[in-house]
Amino acid sequence: MSKNDGNPVFLFDVDGTLIDSAYQHALAWREALEQVQIYLPAWRVHRYIGMSGGMIVHALAREAGRQLSREEQERLPKLHGEAYAKRVGEVKVLPGARELLSALTNAGVRWALATSSEREKAKPAFEMLGLNDDVVIITRDEVKRAKPDPDLFFAAATKLGAEMLHCIVVGDSVWDLLAARRARAIGVGLLSGGYGEDELIKAGAYRVYKDPADLLAHLEETGVRTAGN
Amino acid sequence: MSKNDGNPVFLFDVDGTLIDSAYQHALAWREALEQVQIYLPAWRVHRYIGMSGGMIVHALAREAGRQLSREEQERLPKLHGEAYAKRVGEVKVLPGARELLSALTNAGVRWALATSSEREKAKPAFEMLGLNDDVVIITRDEVKRAKPDPDLFFAAATKLGAEMLHCIVVGDSVWDLLAARRARAIGVGLLSGGYGEDELIKAGAYRVYKDPADLLAHLEETGVRTAGN
Repeated sequence: MSKNDGNPVFLFDVDGTLIDSAYQHALAWREALEQVQIYLPAWRVHRYIGMSGGMIVHALAREAGRQLSREEQERLPKLHGEAYAKRVGEVKVLPGARELLSALTNAGVRWALATSSEREKAKPAFEMLGLNDDVVIITRDEVKRAKPDPDLFFAAATKLGAEMLHCIVVGDSVWDLLAARRARAIGVGLLSGGYGEDELIKAGAYRVYKDPADLLAHLEETGVRTAGN
Repeated sequence: MSKNDGNPVFLFDVDGTLIDSAYQHALAWREALEQVQIYLPAWRVHRYIGMSGGMIVHALAREAGRQLSREEQERLPKLHGEAYAKRVGEVKVLPGARELLSALTNAGVRWALATSSEREKAKPAFEMLGLNDDVVIITRDEVKRAKPDPDLFFAAATKLGAEMLHCIVVGDSVWDLLAARRARAIGVGLLSGGYGEDELIKAGAYRVYKDPADLLAHLEETGVRTAGN
């Protein structure tokens, strides 16, 4: 059993959780799909954001009732990357994201980032967050299967030397929360990716907060012990 | 009392309900706000889509904790219009929207459109829907107050010669459903604007469907009598 000071260990999703990018990702996938003659409305695409690129491609094609050629399967994540790059200038850090991470660090609480995105696509997000070099970051490239499989969270916990039993997964999508359950971690939902509260509760969220700032304001509900409590 | 053949009368919201434009509107408002140094995350802006432009401006500024000058109040809807115009090329008709309107017409069910948008901004949507010249359309320009005030729906019902008691309001946002309740109409919610189901139920939806196609597939639940039932 790893050392446990009584504090939980936090594993954060990135897009929609720390970075205000879920809507740009949704519209970028929508644009990519159109380029292979698949039309799905934005709200349906939105509901798949947070899955890995490979899985999202299959899920969206199935929803559109269409078989994809191998060439299309390989092309779609690239098309999404291009369509997202056009929109990344609009993307900002979510309220309280930097403050939340600093507060955890200052309280001696360990945390890591775990994203279904490839490292290359997620780079602008990491830069916006102004992370130190020693932050543990697990991306799509480092695991066999991304969310809703729990591999990303297992890898992050392992790299932190933490037990899953002490981990809290924070994410904006049902895929984060389903992966959290499969990892036997506690899942905390944030509304900042645009899902409704009930969708996150039904996917197993222990608590749902508005955004990183709101989680920071209620940190004691997750078991974090800071000076004075 | 107006004539009633046993069929309800349908009053449709447009953006997010018949047209897949809610995400573009959300990002366009976000961009407009940034131009007056107000930053709100996309999911928060998204939750105000469907309100009238004037009201949305006040609500968003209040949420951002900021007083607006009269010049900014007047400028913001214009900035939104410009930012939306850049995105309107992406916008499409939602699945089943045209078919739903045709099915109602063919069944002799009366219907109208009622949008918080100004006629000028909503024009591309009307064109996409391929409406006949005789369709009743009420826009922001024709009423004193837009949603969540019920004026748009009152005006639409009056123009159709229908009683509110026989009307079903169909919309994707909580503002449509709140306006429906204030008008004492039945409200039907669609998920196609990106809200979660519980948000629409809690705002008083009688039923919630995925999109216009899903409403069409369950039309009998709203009391429509077509041949054979």
